[in-house]
Amino acid sequence: MPDVDPLVNELRAIVGNDYVIHLPEDLIVFEYDGSVDKAMPSAVVLPGSTAEVSEVVSAASRAGVPIVARGAGTGLSGGAVAEQGGLVVALTRMKRILEIDPADHLAVVEPGVVNLDISTAAAEYGLYFAPDPSSQRACTIGGNVAENSGGPHCLAYGVTTNHVLGMEVVLADGSIAWLGGRTRETPGYDLRGIVIGSEGTLAIATKIVVRLLKQPEAVKTLLAVFKEMDQASSAVSGIIAAGIVPAAIEMMDHFCIEAVEPAVNAGYPKGAGAVLLVEVDGLSEAVEEEASEIERVCRSYDPMEIRAAVDEEERARLWAGRKGVLGALGRLAPNYYLVDGTIPRTRLMEVLARITEIGDKYGLPIANLLHAGDGNLHPSVLFDERDPDQLRRTMEAGAEILELCVEAGGVLSGEHGIGLEKQEYMPLMFNDEDMAAMAKLAPAFGSRGRFNPGKIFPTGKTRAPIPHAGAVARTGAGAFI
Amino acid sequence: MPDVDPLVNELRAIVGNDYVIHLPEDLIVFEYDGSVDKAMPSAVVLPGSTAEVSEVVSAASRAGVPIVARGAGTGLSGGAVAEQGGLVVALTRMKRILEIDPADHLAVVEPGVVNLDISTAAAEYGLYFAPDPSSQRACTIGGNVAENSGGPHCLAYGVTTNHVLGMEVVLADGSIAWLGGRTRETPGYDLRGIVIGSEGTLAIATKIVVRLLKQPEAVKTLLAVFKEMDQASSAVSGIIAAGIVPAAIEMMDHFCIEAVEPAVNAGYPKGAGAVLLVEVDGLSEAVEEEASEIERVCRSYDPMEIRAAVDEEERARLWAGRKGVLGALGRLAPNYYLVDGTIPRTRLMEVLARITEIGDKYGLPIANLLHAGDGNLHPSVLFDERDPDQLRRTMEAGAEILELCVEAGGVLSGEHGIGLEKQEYMPLMFNDEDMAAMAKLAPAFGSRGRFNPGKIFPTGKTRAPIPHAGAVARTGAGAFI
Repeated sequence: MPDVDPLVNELRAIVGNDYVIHLPEDLIVFEYDGSVDKAMPSAVVLPGSTAEVSEVVSAASRAGVPIVARGAGTGLSGGAVAEQGGLVVALTRMKRILEIDPADHLAVVEPGVVNLDISTAAAEYGLYFAPDPSSQRACTIGGNVAENSGGPHCLAYGVTTNHVLGMEVVLADGSIAWLGGRTRETPGYDLRGIVIGSEGTLAIATKIVVRLLKQPEAVKTLLAVFKEMDQASSAVSGIIAAGIVPAAIEMMDHFCIEAVEPAVNAGYPKGAGAVLLVEVDGLSEAVEEEASEIERVCRSYDPMEIRAAVDEEERARLWAGRKGVLGALGRLAPNYYLVDGTIPRTRLMEVLARITEIGDKYGLPIANLLHAGDGNLHPSVLFDERDPDQLRRTMEAGAEILELCVEAGGVLSGEHGIGLEKQEYMPLMFNDEDMAAMAKLAPAFGSRGRFNPGKIFPTGKTRAPIPHAGAVARTGAGAFI
Repeated sequence: MPDVDPLVNELRAIVGNDYVIHLPEDLIVFEYDGSVDKAMPSAVVLPGSTAEVSEVVSAASRAGVPIVARGAGTGLSGGAVAEQGGLVVALTRMKRILEIDPADHLAVVEPGVVNLDISTAAAEYGLYFAPDPSSQRACTIGGNVAENSGGPHCLAYGVTTNHVLGMEVVLADGSIAWLGGRTRETPGYDLRGIVIGSEGTLAIATKIVVRLLKQPEAVKTLLAVFKEMDQASSAVSGIIAAGIVPAAIEMMDHFCIEAVEPAVNAGYPKGAGAVLLVEVDGLSEAVEEEASEIERVCRSYDPMEIRAAVDEEERARLWAGRKGVLGALGRLAPNYYLVDGTIPRTRLMEVLARITEIGDKYGLPIANLLHAGDGNLHPSVLFDERDPDQLRRTMEAGAEILELCVEAGGVLSGEHGIGLEKQEYMPLMFNDEDMAAMAKLAPAFGSRGRFNPGKIFPTGKTRAPIPHAGAVARTGAGAFI
């Protein structure tokens, strides 16, 4: 890569020799993220401070080399893949928790801090950081900001944007600015909000002020097993209609159960067609009352079994089945294509039935795993990428599911972002004026073509789906949903 | 105004003769909003539909006339004042509630719908719209969106942006676009979020999708009266430290008590130096437990009295004192200059003490009224605008209070926006790069100089404070905080 050599030297002068990677054999690990899409960057740089990020951005800008910011690389939509080559700025060295303010319930952290580490550090004050992607032991807060990540408990507490008060960012010209602050409302335009979820296309966050919540006094986790998905869907509607907002409502179908049961021995009964996992938290009395009400609702749909966790160990066991699903899907097929869409939760039953029809139409099993409470679906088309016809059918089935979500009044992405994966589907949801308004924002930040080019907006290419390899090949990805 | 006459004719053709106002004597009522700043628009148009808004915007654009969108005109920072003249687009005719979806807990409304009317319409389904500015019987949802309005209950539930899922907007070129949707997370840039709180400078909302919350099972309101503000501040810290997030924590000082007691007979004891009003809501058991804990905390700071409302009537009486304050300040001085700033709530005691010092320094009484739970201060400098020296001292005291808020880690505006009032103070909080990033966004929407010119960004002029006239002259404004 003779075209980046002068830049490599310049980068070495900024961050030191050890933190610039440019040999092809070393770059391989930076080809991927949690999706299976891949592309080789020209070089990777690991800055250690805001000042270094700023200098790196300026140097890349002078050299005309685009930049892709990267956290732990656990994203599922190709957001950290250097689609058009260029320089990957990996923020994993910037992993200091700079401040925990127990009185104002906030923390100031660097972008490379692992999501769960914030809660671990805040625990001594009885506080925690609410957004909990299933990858929370690995993913970084910088990546969470880029993708506006969700997680099972976002039903009650909201996604990343609801928990980030402010950020220090480096803009495409290398300048450093603060967006938002340390309080919930700041005057002027909400630039904080526009950067969160912009998938690295507008700015690179170098410091992040996050809200911390008080740990709940009590948590109760219920598992309800049903013969049919319809019963589980009805129970979800019943819980919501009862006015309860549980901390989480997770649902999985018979394919998921079949895959995960031999792997984790969650103890799901034979013939189980749907599992519902519901968690409530808060004051002890309220938790007990809500849990009884949830149990009452579930009982009215003829469950095969209802179990409640009484301690943390049992709670972990109930969650193990849910968290192990994607890792276990490899038992059923070599690959899965996970679709991430959100629908109004009232249309759950109808949309799930139509997803089954789509599977039947294309002759492919579709495993359903969902954050049921907020209608965030994760249907996974099971296939074998070695069979070109299966690959084609998978692609068509995936497109049809996304169309179905949008048609049902939903959106293209629940929590994994648009990235590379879904950009060609954006016109399903947004008309030309919407897209034009959205596209115009990037130049205002001066970042168009400079930060993560080729992401979010349609390129006009027809894309193959991004197949997620099954458990054997990529067990890691299984934990990240 | 010969320069707008052709436009007036064009506007008449779009909306009908009855809905175009252009005679100076008719325009007078559109000079003001809830601030006392004023400016005369060239004409006012009242469109009845999105299509008419779009045509009006296109016509004004062709004529090169700037547009100021206006709701009920209850704003406190001059956001709806046509500072540079031009066309006021009043959205009060567009006041239909288009849909209430009780299953998905949302409503679709036009911008001219009065805030409280949403909750009234949703009540039959046991739902309500959470943001509750004290002007909620008059202010419109379109204005709430423009200013990202808060209210006493935003402590627990968040401000307008946390309750608006999506919007149909008209852009400066007359095009119509949807931002956001009917679910909590939408892919792509959060243009919804950037328009909310942009004070009418980016787009005009023509349909708004709002979240509805389930009405709480129980509500309990406590009034605690103390001799000193320090005791009330300590009680606020104690409540927060106990991990309770009440629905509201309101506080007022001896000036407010002195002004409001003769007016509403709230029954505050003689010699009271501070009143704390705390409301908790949720499940009955949790409410009782939290209320006891709050009472316990308050008792430890030697209160003169603690009262709890047991029914809706008593609750209304407890709130009457709080809501009547601004209307009653006219008893103490002909004018007040209300400063709207937010500080980290842990610095409440220290900042309140310094505000008293600032009052002493300038020889002016400063009445303190605050949303204490989230540190949103409303110090009101009491003065007489007929005395030029008092006016000058008021201006300096106000500036010093805003500097103090920013220095304490706070922000310039809690909930009333920047508008005309505070634009010269923006550099206190934002450096040149922050301001540049913010200023660049407006051109991306193509709205710079077209929608609400002269707002938010500093103009370089030194401004006189915007004095709020006392109760005699403008009792209406008193209800709007």
